[in-house]
Amino acid sequence: MSSQLNVAVVGAGYWGPNLARNFRVADDWNLAAICDLDLARAERVANSVGGVHVTQDLAEVLDDSTVDAVAIATPARTHHPIVLAALEAGKHVIVEKPLADTRERGAEMVERARDNGLVLMADHTYCYTPAVLKIRELIEEGALGEILFVDSVRINLGLIQPDVDVFWDLAPHDLSIMDFVLPGGLDVTSVSAHGSDPLRTGKSCVGYLAMPLSSGGIAHVHVNWLSPTKIRQMVIGGTKRTLVWDDLNPQQRVSVYDRGVDLALQSKETADTRAANISYRLGDTWAPALPEQEALANVAAEFASAIRDGRPARTDGESGLRVLSVLEAASASLAVSGAPQHAETYIKEVQEA
Amino acid sequence: MSSQLNVAVVGAGYWGPNLARNFRVADDWNLAAICDLDLARAERVANSVGGVHVTQDLAEVLDDSTVDAVAIATPARTHHPIVLAALEAGKHVIVEKPLADTRERGAEMVERARDNGLVLMADHTYCYTPAVLKIRELIEEGALGEILFVDSVRINLGLIQPDVDVFWDLAPHDLSIMDFVLPGGLDVTSVSAHGSDPLRTGKSCVGYLAMPLSSGGIAHVHVNWLSPTKIRQMVIGGTKRTLVWDDLNPQQRVSVYDRGVDLALQSKETADTRAANISYRLGDTWAPALPEQEALANVAAEFASAIRDGRPARTDGESGLRVLSVLEAASASLAVSGAPQHAETYIKEVQEA
Amino acid sequence: MSSQLNVAVVGAGYWGPNLARNFRVADDWNLAAICDLDLARAERVANSVGGVHVTQDLAEVLDDSTVDAVAIATPARTHHPIVLAALEAGKHVIVEKPLADTRERGAEMVERARDNGLVLMADHTYCYTPAVLKIRELIEEGALGEILFVDSVRINLGLIQPDVDVFWDLAPHDLSIMDFVLPGGLDVTSVSAHGSDPLRTGKSCVGYLAMPLSSGGIAHVHVNWLSPTKIRQMVIGGTKRTLVWDDLNPQQRVSVYDRGVDLALQSKETADTRAANISYRLGDTWAPALPEQEALANVAAEFASAIRDGRPARTDGESGLRVLSVLEAASASLAVSGAPQHAETYIKEVQEA
Amino acid sequence: MSSQLNVAVVGAGYWGPNLARNFRVADDWNLAAICDLDLARAERVANSVGGVHVTQDLAEVLDDSTVDAVAIATPARTHHPIVLAALEAGKHVIVEKPLADTRERGAEMVERARDNGLVLMADHTYCYTPAVLKIRELIEEGALGEILFVDSVRINLGLIQPDVDVFWDLAPHDLSIMDFVLPGGLDVTSVSAHGSDPLRTGKSCVGYLAMPLSSGGIAHVHVNWLSPTKIRQMVIGGTKRTLVWDDLNPQQRVSVYDRGVDLALQSKETADTRAANISYRLGDTWAPALPEQEALANVAAEFASAIRDGRPARTDGESGLRVLSVLEAASASLAVSGAPQHAETYIKEVQEA
Repeated sequence: MSSQLNVAVVGAGYWGPNLARNFRVADDWNLAAICDLDLARAERVANSVGGVHVTQDLAEVLDDSTVDAVAIATPARTHHPIVLAALEAGKHVIVEKPLADTRERGAEMVERARDNGLVLMADHTYCYTPAVLKIRELIEEGALGEILFVDSVRINLGLIQPDVDVFWDLAPHDLSIMDFVLPGGLDVTSVSAHGSDPLRTGKSCVGYLAMPLSSGGIAHVHVNWLSPTKIRQMVIGGTKRTLVWDDLNPQQRVSVYDRGVDLALQSKETADTRAANISYRLGDTWAPALPEQEALANVAAEFASAIRDGRPARTDGESGLRVLSVLEAASASLAVSGAPQHAETYIKEVQEA
Repeated sequence: MSSQLNVAVVGAGYWGPNLARNFRVADDWNLAAICDLDLARAERVANSVGGVHVTQDLAEVLDDSTVDAVAIATPARTHHPIVLAALEAGKHVIVEKPLADTRERGAEMVERARDNGLVLMADHTYCYTPAVLKIRELIEEGALGEILFVDSVRINLGLIQPDVDVFWDLAPHDLSIMDFVLPGGLDVTSVSAHGSDPLRTGKSCVGYLAMPLSSGGIAHVHVNWLSPTKIRQMVIGGTKRTLVWDDLNPQQRVSVYDRGVDLALQSKETADTRAANISYRLGDTWAPALPEQEALANVAAEFASAIRDGRPARTDGESGLRVLSVLEAASASLAVSGAPQHAETYIKEVQEA
Repeated sequence: MSSQLNVAVVGAGYWGPNLARNFRVADDWNLAAICDLDLARAERVANSVGGVHVTQDLAEVLDDSTVDAVAIATPARTHHPIVLAALEAGKHVIVEKPLADTRERGAEMVERARDNGLVLMADHTYCYTPAVLKIRELIEEGALGEILFVDSVRINLGLIQPDVDVFWDLAPHDLSIMDFVLPGGLDVTSVSAHGSDPLRTGKSCVGYLAMPLSSGGIAHVHVNWLSPTKIRQMVIGGTKRTLVWDDLNPQQRVSVYDRGVDLALQSKETADTRAANISYRLGDTWAPALPEQEALANVAAEFASAIRDGRPARTDGESGLRVLSVLEAASASLAVSGAPQHAETYIKEVQEA
Repeated sequence: MSSQLNVAVVGAGYWGPNLARNFRVADDWNLAAICDLDLARAERVANSVGGVHVTQDLAEVLDDSTVDAVAIATPARTHHPIVLAALEAGKHVIVEKPLADTRERGAEMVERARDNGLVLMADHTYCYTPAVLKIRELIEEGALGEILFVDSVRINLGLIQPDVDVFWDLAPHDLSIMDFVLPGGLDVTSVSAHGSDPLRTGKSCVGYLAMPLSSGGIAHVHVNWLSPTKIRQMVIGGTKRTLVWDDLNPQQRVSVYDRGVDLALQSKETADTRAANISYRLGDTWAPALPEQEALANVAAEFASAIRDGRPARTDGESGLRVLSVLEAASASLAVSGAPQHAETYIKEVQEA
């Protein structure tokens, strides 16, 4: 690779330092600047990675023609104006999750990037962990067969967020992962959300999302800020095998079970004959070796690669939009006591436009 | 205790032998007869417990004035006629779960028992395990504070039942336990059921039940026949402590976590100020010692004790009825894509009558 | 198989009922009699398996020419006279572990069986569990490569035995399993035993056995009656793969790790160059499916098969003798503060004779 | 605390950066210099902590009268000359484990520190983790009663070290922890070491240490470089309770089991009557909450506190010496096939001198 791309990190709060550190050491990238309204904060981050130009002025970054891309780690409500400005300035953009604070604003960002021929990447970091990359690969090559259900649990004693409920805080992880690994992406027929606010904090602290999949089967997410134990587990059931991802078990994060239910298919079948022709398979369990990699290093590499190849990132703006669609549908469902709601998909948006 | 009660076991299929074995060795009971339409099956059970009278004829059992009680372990659809006949004959009755195949039939059984002054006990066996008895005791004495949420997971590779879906097959366990341990019993404001039948067997094989509690908070159940791994776990979150029951961890089945979220209550508070005044508690974990007891032995003792004291059993017909109400509401919710449904309670039934 | 073999169970205490139950239902066997000095005890066992002849008189059993074999489950100190009498009477014999109370008596039993052309089988039940059968098969087919080490832990809160220490109580399990799965059987160059009796009960309650293997590598056993947690784990390290057997994890009892250390062998190597040429392999983990089988059913089948084929049982008297040799060497080592002791092998016995 | 102490870190290899980072942020300390023969390496560490004076010249550091203390993280074979030079220069010293490469050199260091009235602290980092601090506290306050046994397992797939065997590489952790938590320190009557080198690397890769305790009971260590699974577990059995420390279970690192064996003591007892009067206790389990602290921050605080109070550090040179004594005895035992060897204690050394 002959030359490096120049990137500026915008936002030096919680996530920015991680982006800065990874762009700093990536072969593909030169970390050109760190930008934050709080200059002292930007300087602390710059020092921690060994001295990088800092600025309070976003315009300075966007006006700099040597800057190829910006990585945005500011609060969600500021994503829309900053991303649009960056796209207008001809910069490729990677933006922290969630893509935007509303689906509509996110859609505008996606369309603007497409119109300008720029990469807009959603920083769905989890998707670039060795475990999730392996899961995507296994599903893609058919190791699980057709997907029957996806069940994700993400619970622990968590900080009650001032501005978002437990769905918007935690579920983006589960939803972006599902979007990444499912063959057709996160394509749901409806969303039912059941939340509870037993401490009367004004927002759901315990939440459940039920989402029938367009391909058949169901996806479900359980998020919870009030659990004393921490669980990070996703079960993906397929017609051939079932996979369990237990992210807190470093010795065996991903297990593939060759166990399940077999159908003896017949030419003339009804539901009854199907039930009668079911048998069980109790085969081996297999846990693939996973490399030791930092997910954000993979994110940085993918961002560079998408820019160079002129292709969408594996987690592009549309994937961020699908996550937003489900979150908005979840909020709508919550408002009507959990009745199922339609989730707008970006594809339809575009067709209607 | 001067004299034993006489009991006949009706039904010698899957569960009957367990009832027979436990009544046989119980101090309170004399096992008087085993009744099954399949006499050979009845004899096998009788031999296994050391020689007991067998019969094909239910009437013979009910006409026998020395028989005080019958234990019914026949298919659910036969509970209604057999229980009514037994109650008419003046026998106390214990009946395997579910109480009946419809709530309406169950309600008739409960009313008949009350009218005749007889004990009608639901054999909610799990409630009499040392773990669940301890959980009930802890909640009763206030160790958890007010209950904020109950989350139950009961998944494994299960036999796809010919006549019932995964809700009716597995959830009665979770629902009867919740009814047993929650201070006000299983008192829910609505039931939303999300099921999936990805193998097209004609019934849900994966199911989720979301049930807001009248007391605030939420109860949730995940049942699944298609999971390659087996999980039996219930988390009960309270304002003071949170309890985790992991039934597959014999070395530490019940853990009580003194961890959680504390609210600094103020005189004039809003949801916003509440959120602002939240702090975290990271205290000790405590796992109570549990005695080694067979649950069915406790069931037999409770049945005898209720009869002798002329009081309802701890898991009486009404508790069975509350479970049926939720199951019927779940079926109704399934039929409308998961929209929440009202669950009739037995109390209202009676008031309406 | 045309006809069944007749077997009598001698000893109706702790283990006898299990033998009786399994011989009773085995296709290969007819359970002809149960013999115990305590006739009432014999009758209880006979009733529990559905009516079998009982007797107090061992001579009656041995004089019965229709009895092909006896299964002996009496105290260890009585094995020697009973087994010799049975062998004199021309009966095949299976005997509960340990084979005898001394190696010398065990050796006499083994020689007598050989001289009389009869099967003498050690009831090393654990060897016939699906897990251990699979482990033996994997090692036999070379899946692990050459064995580098075997580490076995068998600890729990255990009954302090009146007559034997923790080595003689628990280690026979580990030793008989090692003998069963290791390619050359339990062939050790010496035995060092370290015991502790911190409660001053007069015998070791905590014990460690270190045994260099003749083939290179080391075997080690940790047995402990004072541990509040229960562990049943054996790690078998090989040049190709390493296997972990966790008997208390029913969902994944046997795991085979394709992880280890690789040596880049060179023509002229020294220890130094070997160390320099070591690299690491971090491959997949694999857990074979195991059938659901009762070990004692497999024991009964193996006993019949050995008799019919006129061959030694897979756990023959000599395997029982190798276990005794190690236990005696362990006792000798304990008496000299853990200094390593030679373990007599049966082969040498015979050569010396 | 009015003024900070000045410390120089000597050695910028594997461990030095951790020391530098912790001294840099500690309230008690001013990080005055980083010294390494490889100046570039020293500079990298200095930059990572934000700019500190670097030098290749140890003499420069020792001649600087403003430097109060040095922290030594150089190879073990260099500890002796560097520490002696530092002590001669009047500096307090903290030195990475092991204290020295021989017990004799370590003893000279300890004596020199004492003669010069300076603090010599062994950097037994593990002792300052919240888990080990809590274990020491529990034992000190009598929660476990008298200690009956200590069993430590530290196994994983490990780098085969070029210069030391698995005992000298891993066991210092277990031994220093035992020395820290046991009431009388690591006071053993003998050491038996069983090692195996099945890959013929020229040194033990699998090792077992059995050490009867002077106070009764036994301590045992299992260290292993060839295990595909990682275990870090210590069981400490006491007359009142037993503690299990599982360092890889962040949700419950320390568990205290109120389970065990009770002795009904009698006035005239023998071993036999003791065995007869044993009963079992199956009480609750309790897992204390542990604060989140970095162990090295506690190390830095303890070093400062010992200097200011003119007292020995909690892990002083003598504790390092006791660890060395056991390691040397282990090497001696290995050389005679595991026969038990006497472990010199520093106390005796001094008395003899």
